[in-house]
Amino acid sequence: MLIDPGSKVLVETPTYLGALQAFGPMEPHPVGVASDDDGVIVDDLVAKAKDARFIYLLPNFQNPTGRTMTEERRAAVSAAAAAAGLPIVEDNPYGELWFDEAPPLPLAARNPEGVIYLGSFSKVLAPGLRLGFLVAPKSIYPKLLQAKQAVDLHTPIFTQRMVSAVMKDRFLDTHVPTIRALYKRQRDAMMAAHARDGRPGREVQRAQGRHVPVGAPARGRGHREAAAQVAFVPGAPFYAGEGDPRTLRLSFVTASVEEIDTAIAALAQTLREELVLLGDRKLAATPA
Amino acid sequence: MLIDPGSKVLVETPTYLGALQAFGPMEPHPVGVASDDDGVIVDDLVAKAKDARFIYLLPNFQNPTGRTMTEERRAAVSAAAAAAGLPIVEDNPYGELWFDEAPPLPLAARNPEGVIYLGSFSKVLAPGLRLGFLVAPKSIYPKLLQAKQAVDLHTPIFTQRMVSAVMKDRFLDTHVPTIRALYKRQRDAMMAAHARDGRPGREVQRAQGRHVPVGAPARGRGHREAAAQVAFVPGAPFYAGEGDPRTLRLSFVTASVEEIDTAIAALAQTLREELVLLGDRKLAATPA
Repeated sequence: MLIDPGSKVLVETPTYLGALQAFGPMEPHPVGVASDDDGVIVDDLVAKAKDARFIYLLPNFQNPTGRTMTEERRAAVSAAAAAAGLPIVEDNPYGELWFDEAPPLPLAARNPEGVIYLGSFSKVLAPGLRLGFLVAPKSIYPKLLQAKQAVDLHTPIFTQRMVSAVMKDRFLDTHVPTIRALYKRQRDAMMAAHARDGRPGREVQRAQGRHVPVGAPARGRGHREAAAQVAFVPGAPFYAGEGDPRTLRLSFVTASVEEIDTAIAALAQTLREELVLLGDRKLAATPA
Repeated sequence: MLIDPGSKVLVETPTYLGALQAFGPMEPHPVGVASDDDGVIVDDLVAKAKDARFIYLLPNFQNPTGRTMTEERRAAVSAAAAAAGLPIVEDNPYGELWFDEAPPLPLAARNPEGVIYLGSFSKVLAPGLRLGFLVAPKSIYPKLLQAKQAVDLHTPIFTQRMVSAVMKDRFLDTHVPTIRALYKRQRDAMMAAHARDGRPGREVQRAQGRHVPVGAPARGRGHREAAAQVAFVPGAPFYAGEGDPRTLRLSFVTASVEEIDTAIAALAQTLREELVLLGDRKLAATPA
């Protein structure tokens, strides 16, 4: 509804790969806004806002970085977008899955007329249902419904009713705290393994700077069977323009604490070996 | 996957409105192929095949006309499309719902490499599941999967498993004959009501030729409360180019035999009155 071929669409750096894929068939021109650990940088947003159709943001536990936009940044981004007349598409599939404290209020709560807010039952209930929801300004509803009907006629009634019943039963009130505790244990295991194994997160980054192909550990070679079992997503496709090949995304949600432990150890060992194999002769070819 | 902005796409005259709506966001140029009671006319198909991306066909109980492509026409269409290198998108949601005898074999059975065949559980099981399937040449599978993933990541696993269980139980073997018998009774009631009420199908056509707005009976005026309860779809949007305003689509599937009886009587009476009200003074404005 918002994209014509060539339309400028702003995204974070990096951003969610699935969003880039969803926009793709409409042939936009995605432009990455410079971002730090607090989210998009407001000056760069303002500089790139002209003629952009919208900015796509994941303020909570961003995919793929995991970062959360601070309260201060939210206020600044919200004000800058409103001043520029730039609509925000706010994607919040993970907001309920906080470990220590709930994230700040969504951008949609600050400027409801300027934000299309996307929610999902995939992360709090079941991804296999493919059920989500949106909250949007009333003015765009007729067009939204028309576009949605063209795509799928309607969302399956059966799964909508099922989720409605689950919500009425207040199942989510007990289920969400359960998965928060579960995921926190896995997150902690992932962080502990990183700390123990010589901060392979950093080594990955350094190794990739020396052109270790990110897919290499997953392909399996000789004695590296354990590392070959580690599934991860190369980071480059998560970028609007040219991706950063020194990055990868690791997930801890579907792996047990023991699997996380073994996997990070194997991955770290493999990356250390690659680094040694490449040696310093490749250093001259390292990108700036 | 098959449509770029401006791509020529061939459809029947008329064709399924939902297909035109599904193609719409990709901005094709839909072109209607002349059609008779047996389906698309082969000479016109051949004349229009050049540069067309595909032809969209509903050989069985076509929506909205209800016509079925004969065996002879299928053979001719299949041969002509193959000769022209024109892919066929064959939509068959209704094929199992025959009353007297099963329709001829699908076009996909004649030339599997030239046909993308679409099936659905909406009509034989439940439309609220939004579950269907396709059979396509192997060569286009990788692109199809990629495009599908961009749209929805995947079809809900829950409903897929449910339908798989229903099929393994052989529920459809008893259910489909049951709904065939049910729909046949309703179809017969609709035809009987048409015959009894002065063939309103024809009068609708004549009345529309005199510019009776097709939406009028559904809006309710004074003593026409009964007709105002009759839901139907205006026919014009089912056409690729300019629609024929003298047409409408009536459905008998969700109405009881008694409701069909009352509805057709009320609709016929209202149309007769409109015809009298308009009189002959409007006849000069009748489209050719």
